[in-house]
Amino acid sequence: MSLEGKLLIGQQAVSGERAEIRAINPASGEALEPVYRGGGEAEVARACELAEAAFASYRETSLEDRATFLETIAAEIEAVSDDLTQRGMAETGLPQARLEGERGRTCGQLRLFAAVVRAGEWLDVRHDPALPERAPMPRADLRQRHIALGPVAVFGASNFPLAFSVAGGDTASALAAGCPVVVKGHSAHPGTSELVGRAIQRAVAKCGLPEGVFSLLFGSGREIGQALVSDPRIQAVGFTGSRSGGTALMQTAQSRPQPIPVYAEMSSINPVFLLPEALKARGEALGTAFVGSLNMGAGQFCTNPGLVLGVKGEALDAFVKAAGEAVTASGAQTMLTPGIHAAYADGLGALAGNAKVREIARGQTGDGPHQCQTGLFVASAADFLADEALQAEVFGATSLVIECADLAEMQRVAAGLEGQLTATLQLDDGDLEAAKGLLPTLERKAGRILANGWPTGVEVCHAMVHGGPYPATSDSRTTSVGSAAIHRFLRPVCYQDLPAGLLPEALQDGNPLGVSRLVDGKREG
Amino acid sequence: MSLEGKLLIGQQAVSGERAEIRAINPASGEALEPVYRGGGEAEVARACELAEAAFASYRETSLEDRATFLETIAAEIEAVSDDLTQRGMAETGLPQARLEGERGRTCGQLRLFAAVVRAGEWLDVRHDPALPERAPMPRADLRQRHIALGPVAVFGASNFPLAFSVAGGDTASALAAGCPVVVKGHSAHPGTSELVGRAIQRAVAKCGLPEGVFSLLFGSGREIGQALVSDPRIQAVGFTGSRSGGTALMQTAQSRPQPIPVYAEMSSINPVFLLPEALKARGEALGTAFVGSLNMGAGQFCTNPGLVLGVKGEALDAFVKAAGEAVTASGAQTMLTPGIHAAYADGLGALAGNAKVREIARGQTGDGPHQCQTGLFVASAADFLADEALQAEVFGATSLVIECADLAEMQRVAAGLEGQLTATLQLDDGDLEAAKGLLPTLERKAGRILANGWPTGVEVCHAMVHGGPYPATSDSRTTSVGSAAIHRFLRPVCYQDLPAGLLPEALQDGNPLGVSRLVDGKREG
Repeated sequence: MSLEGKLLIGQQAVSGERAEIRAINPASGEALEPVYRGGGEAEVARACELAEAAFASYRETSLEDRATFLETIAAEIEAVSDDLTQRGMAETGLPQARLEGERGRTCGQLRLFAAVVRAGEWLDVRHDPALPERAPMPRADLRQRHIALGPVAVFGASNFPLAFSVAGGDTASALAAGCPVVVKGHSAHPGTSELVGRAIQRAVAKCGLPEGVFSLLFGSGREIGQALVSDPRIQAVGFTGSRSGGTALMQTAQSRPQPIPVYAEMSSINPVFLLPEALKARGEALGTAFVGSLNMGAGQFCTNPGLVLGVKGEALDAFVKAAGEAVTASGAQTMLTPGIHAAYADGLGALAGNAKVREIARGQTGDGPHQCQTGLFVASAADFLADEALQAEVFGATSLVIECADLAEMQRVAAGLEGQLTATLQLDDGDLEAAKGLLPTLERKAGRILANGWPTGVEVCHAMVHGGPYPATSDSRTTSVGSAAIHRFLRPVCYQDLPAGLLPEALQDGNPLGVSRLVDGKREG
Repeated sequence: MSLEGKLLIGQQAVSGERAEIRAINPASGEALEPVYRGGGEAEVARACELAEAAFASYRETSLEDRATFLETIAAEIEAVSDDLTQRGMAETGLPQARLEGERGRTCGQLRLFAAVVRAGEWLDVRHDPALPERAPMPRADLRQRHIALGPVAVFGASNFPLAFSVAGGDTASALAAGCPVVVKGHSAHPGTSELVGRAIQRAVAKCGLPEGVFSLLFGSGREIGQALVSDPRIQAVGFTGSRSGGTALMQTAQSRPQPIPVYAEMSSINPVFLLPEALKARGEALGTAFVGSLNMGAGQFCTNPGLVLGVKGEALDAFVKAAGEAVTASGAQTMLTPGIHAAYADGLGALAGNAKVREIARGQTGDGPHQCQTGLFVASAADFLADEALQAEVFGATSLVIECADLAEMQRVAAGLEGQLTATLQLDDGDLEAAKGLLPTLERKAGRILANGWPTGVEVCHAMVHGGPYPATSDSRTTSVGSAAIHRFLRPVCYQDLPAGLLPEALQDGNPLGVSRLVDGKREG
């Protein structure tokens, strides 16, 4: 594996001139080679200039060519599988199986978007034929398709070094839509990012696409990100990270002379509702299974179950007891970065030091420098409702159980929650009425509602919604996982009475692309 | 016709306590009865409280019930046709035929949305069935539908007292999506607004819907609008009006603890490109036809052609000469309000006083107090590119012809334009290559591209896009006219492994609603 510590701008690899970025192996604290020097405004401008230059031809690539490009990226990533796993483990502390699985997911979603591109539904082709005889006014011939927004800025996430990073969901869906992508790689895993970035570079060259279709920048601090979002050529932003980071990008994007959409996936505590019959029938088993979800990936998932609600009583006590025992038995896991570990330790300490919160259990402490000790706490619904701080996400394997006086109080807590990525119901047949009472509230709070499962694990498919009301995301009208994510980077254009020679292929008579169309309001194909 | 000068909050008619609003007949300058007292924070809060209370049941009305409600609104509006025309003429100075046509369009679009609701495509139903045997991980059962965002604030426009006002496109599409609506009626036509508002009130009662589904507020100044957009129960905003007004609402919406989407349709000068062969073949006829479009509705359309581009030479001179003669012959028309007339006079004066601009012709002056004198001016492309002020919209029947040295300069002017609602090509067969060169630029600048027509006149249909990049609108991903406008007020929710008894009807096995679905990524029905 040869890493050069360079920024990838189009087909070039260039050295930055700003502050050094060094990946740190969180399991050992060791700094990894090579050094990456951050880019500045000049590198942002160059990458955006190339992206803009590439846009005109890239957005009009044929469905087949664009799909092949996405598949070529997947193949190029697979060609460096071993290097990716090795470097990814060193940079993130994540285990081998997780990185291999995440690589599979990353390549799988590139291939899913290839299929989506070929199917062409995303074009949303509509045709209202001319009605020259209509009285009192004839109708013109009106056709619609969706086109790509323009160059897109993508911010790699710390917690998914592959699936939400350089070639992750945001990049895949933006490329699928026809948008060139400028990635700002996460400083925690620059080597993994370079490996993936070079795979995309090779795919661009192999497919004969203009080099500006993809660039990869690095930079510490917020300067480079703000410069990227402020660049007039950037037309949309994809981001996965903290609430403060996402909110800052939203403000920058809105303050531009031309405001642009920001798709930021930020903060969620993913409430789990233990309904009475389910809790009575299997409280202990639920407690054990819950901790399995809590500990996944050292709790470093956007969908980690950080809040559990039940009605106070023996059944909830049994759940808490079993969960507490599972927490006590939980081994320490290395967290992604020293910074994430420090923030987790602060969050855990704040919960433990909150007089309204009762500590139930802590997991084992580890020998490594940045290991996460699982935590479980309990508070009353009244105290939770009175203290906004208890709703704050603690990123890591800690959860808070809320004891509600009754179902009505559980409903009040649900109504008081901020926007969430997920809401989970644990229910048995006898809980159906209680669940029906909660569901309308949960639909307004979350992008995905689960029954008798756990929120961790996000399927990449057509029906998935990985999104939700603010602050879960900046835009609840979309998803960042699954095929519908392509719609974030498209806008409609209507063509009125255009001569056949000017019409885009997707809109030509006879439907040469063979895509599903809405003709006079009726679905065809 | 009995008008009470009241705010309509749910089923009540209440008196405001803020500054008086009086409609003024712009043709005579006469103030019209009754007086409307503006509402304040209390009325905003009450309307939003009712809207929030109505939301839970309204958003789950059956497709049939909701469609019937929209049709009932149309019928109730038609039942007061004569009053509407009479009061509308007095409040706006628009002629009878225009108000009758606009009433037809308003009721037509309510019925279009009724058909859209019944068809159920807007639900975007998706189903990825469970794959329990899949290795290494089984897939859960995943279903998706779209649900309504929540209560919506709609701001009535001055220039379409019916079709973009109390029961206009924003209201119709929000109600179709399942969102209660709180309208802030435009102060220029409060009587027309009250008549329409009472028609909706009656439809709400007849259909047995919760009263909060609709309220109508009045208020002068920006206080009431800002209060409405700031109310935490409001989840989206529809607006048609000025760039400064729309931008202020965007900022308010983004500054909320929970930011919300704003759909503001603001400012557009709708460039018309006269390509060489067409100009040569029919420059004179184009000049005359152009002025017909320019004068429609005293130029008070969002799609008014405020900019014309051609290559300098004899053919363009013939166009300008014919257009100038038509302008000179143009009768004065009463503008909508004294304020709009004053702003128009200012804009006309600024153009006339710009040393880089040559005045070609002015239309007739009228005897009335607020009449628009048509204007036609010419400037060079170089001067246009150097002076941002020349891109500013002059709301009314004035247009600026830009003389380009050649097609390359025309292309540069196109590339330098701000976002537009429309771009129009006048072309003959011999212009196809020139048009192909312009089209990619125009697609990035405008929501609708026309050939050999004029931008005024917006068909309400499925393929229409009345939208475009900022500052034409605040959100280029949507349209405010046509059936796709419903998508502005929806968001996706995913349901994972929900028991049959909890699934919304749209997602139940067997597709009981009979709607088009994406099953495992394949379109069915």
